[in-house]
Amino acid sequence: EMPAPPARLGLCAACHGERGRAQIPGAPNLAGQKLDYLREALKQYRDGRRDVALMKAAIGPVSDAELDQLAQWYSAQTPVAASQP
Amino acid sequence: EMPAPPARLGLCAACHGERGRAQIPGAPNLAGQKLDYLREALKQYRDGRRDVALMKAAIGPVSDAELDQLAQWYSAQTPVAASQP
Repeated sequence: EMPAPPARLGLCAACHGERGRAQIPGAPNLAGQKLDYLREALKQYRDGRRDVALMKAAIGPVSDAELDQLAQWYSAQTPVAASQP
Repeated sequence: EMPAPPARLGLCAACHGERGRAQIPGAPNLAGQKLDYLREALKQYRDGRRDVALMKAAIGPVSDAELDQLAQWYSAQTPVAASQP
């Protein structure tokens, strides 16, 4: 069933929304994304293979366990079709 | 309304599915993803900022116009919640 919202969700929600619907241009939807893909992407933002300063800064202080919680939260969200508001 | 399936869809569908549902571990779902995000990701796979040899090889021979068609196709697909088969 739905995991509890992670403590640091607010950090991500500014751009990705609390339920994984992008809030700003350029940010991806995360709802229903594959968990293994989210984990790998986060790793690449952290180690710089994905060179996005904002993401590196955002996840810098976040523990691996919390990162995994955030990945699980977003993967568990129900995506909505783009056309809906 | 739904754009026509791009000619090169088969190239992407092997890993991302014809309608944007990941077919292999590690590949992301693309259905309903933000178009601007997909465009930027494709650019980064092409110029190597996202250093994924498989993606660079896959999109190498594809024209910008075709890449954009593929991004539009996947962005227009309806995502399904992860739990469904």
